[in-house]
Amino acid sequence: MSERWVLGVDIGGTNLGVGAVPYVGSGVGALRSCPTNPQRGPDAAVEDIARMAAAVVAEVADAAEAAAEEAPRFVGVGIGCPGPLDLKDGRIISTPNLGWGGYPIRDRISDAVGLSASLDNDANCATYGEWWRGAAKGSRTVVGVTLGTGIGGGLIADGKLVRGASGSAGEIGHMTIDVNGRRCACGNYGCLEAYASGPNIAARAREGLEAGYRSILPDLVDGDLDRITAATVYDALVRGDDYAREVMTETAKMLGAGLANLVNVFNPEIIVVVGGVTRAGGHLFEPLRAEIRRRAFRSAVDACSIVPGALPDTAGVIGAAGVFISEAAA
Amino acid sequence: MSERWVLGVDIGGTNLGVGAVPYVGSGVGALRSCPTNPQRGPDAAVEDIARMAAAVVAEVADAAEAAAEEAPRFVGVGIGCPGPLDLKDGRIISTPNLGWGGYPIRDRISDAVGLSASLDNDANCATYGEWWRGAAKGSRTVVGVTLGTGIGGGLIADGKLVRGASGSAGEIGHMTIDVNGRRCACGNYGCLEAYASGPNIAARAREGLEAGYRSILPDLVDGDLDRITAATVYDALVRGDDYAREVMTETAKMLGAGLANLVNVFNPEIIVVVGGVTRAGGHLFEPLRAEIRRRAFRSAVDACSIVPGALPDTAGVIGAAGVFISEAAA
Repeated sequence: MSERWVLGVDIGGTNLGVGAVPYVGSGVGALRSCPTNPQRGPDAAVEDIARMAAAVVAEVADAAEAAAEEAPRFVGVGIGCPGPLDLKDGRIISTPNLGWGGYPIRDRISDAVGLSASLDNDANCATYGEWWRGAAKGSRTVVGVTLGTGIGGGLIADGKLVRGASGSAGEIGHMTIDVNGRRCACGNYGCLEAYASGPNIAARAREGLEAGYRSILPDLVDGDLDRITAATVYDALVRGDDYAREVMTETAKMLGAGLANLVNVFNPEIIVVVGGVTRAGGHLFEPLRAEIRRRAFRSAVDACSIVPGALPDTAGVIGAAGVFISEAAA
Repeated sequence: MSERWVLGVDIGGTNLGVGAVPYVGSGVGALRSCPTNPQRGPDAAVEDIARMAAAVVAEVADAAEAAAEEAPRFVGVGIGCPGPLDLKDGRIISTPNLGWGGYPIRDRISDAVGLSASLDNDANCATYGEWWRGAAKGSRTVVGVTLGTGIGGGLIADGKLVRGASGSAGEIGHMTIDVNGRRCACGNYGCLEAYASGPNIAARAREGLEAGYRSILPDLVDGDLDRITAATVYDALVRGDDYAREVMTETAKMLGAGLANLVNVFNPEIIVVVGGVTRAGGHLFEPLRAEIRRRAFRSAVDACSIVPGALPDTAGVIGAAGVFISEAAA
């Protein structure tokens, strides 16, 4: 194995992850995660990250010793964090899901783990991870889509992350696809995220049930519709529920309209979709691909693969480390 | 003036343009244009281009001689053409407005003018021209928008045109902004172009008149509504017609939704809007900027200027020449 390593840190709304990523090779040498607790504040999160980082470093060192290999050398830490971020100053500008606005996350983590650090948007890191060592390896023009509590994205052109004028490129979840459509948490109307994020899939399912659609969904949550999540919809679908299938097909249609926009505008070789919703597999990807084909230019559709990510639990950690390495090399 | 020059060729649905573009400096040394006649076929267009190229070269030579400067040296010809194009083979794949599918336009023009040639999409060339020597000079992340019979676009990231996997990046006119909206000529529903291209502005104006809106528009076309164009709507607007103003405001709103998508996805420093519709000036740009601000992320909107092009008649010619130079240097 490589003797040089980078720590990757993935700060999510649900979990904090820390992994050891080799300069050369693949995968992670060690991985730790713990629940994110936004209320405890960012300093507590930095403590958790430092504790997990120490454990990860020790595990890799032990493994090297056991294998009689050279001692690992950790050269830096790459951080992926929800934004918007001030990349130059390494600060969080605001994070709707965490509420840690203004916090100098890059330098605090750098100090806590004793390594120089890089910072980028979480969706950029996941996209970079899938491009560097995952499903989009070898492609030059890539769109990454993260489907979760929100919908994020990353763009790679000619093998480089597109960051834009203020570091916020890739906010694909807030493309308007329905100009007079559903209100989005961002304040806009008809955003892709207002239809296809996890909470909005659940909300749309609830709305249909309240309007009288028949489904096994209420049974799966003991009649408490507020407990319906995107995962519940998926569970109902695999049990053969027609209404749940309809909700997923509609999700795929809206997501397809959004991704067709990216196919037309960016003409990517590959779109990598990551996140829990991809568990739906063919139930999502088949209608999704069909909708993209209906909407986008044929030559651009023919040039583009639409695939699930290859690093379901580690794209963010691996990508954050990859961004550190690419910046160190620049 | 520079002794080295490049010919720029702008193939449009309405006009063919040829200009002499200096390696160093600005503007064009000489410019010719003639109407495009798609029915006469592409060979006739190449003849027209060769004839205009000879006139342009002679004019620049005469001017240099008159000024007792070194004789100009033409090192190549850059061609901008509607697509989709096969950039590698220098062929038109298909052109809805011209109907010259399969034609090897790059090599035919190269042979006819006796210079090595480059080929790129017309909207990419216009964007490149505005970036190289126009309104977007000095910016690193740029979106160009061409508003005309169709709506096209070009993307520049880190000072380079984004071409995508099959050379068709920048087809921003066919972003879905209204998922169940107006049918577009491309077959999709709710494309930006279905609302904000010249012919669709006119069509929307006609539809309102047929539905009973009162306006001076019918008087401007002697009652023949089929004669209404986007320019007629603009003329009515400057004469104080409320309905024409409403049509233009609605156009700006739909265009704003589309450009807000690009602000969120690409986070450009500048969006340069070129084409006849920009004649509407503040009547277009004020509601356009307001709509973008309503829809896109604040930090990205704050980082982005939205401006009309600085090279209204020559962006395509200058940009085509600039693309040649950039490829020759690569």
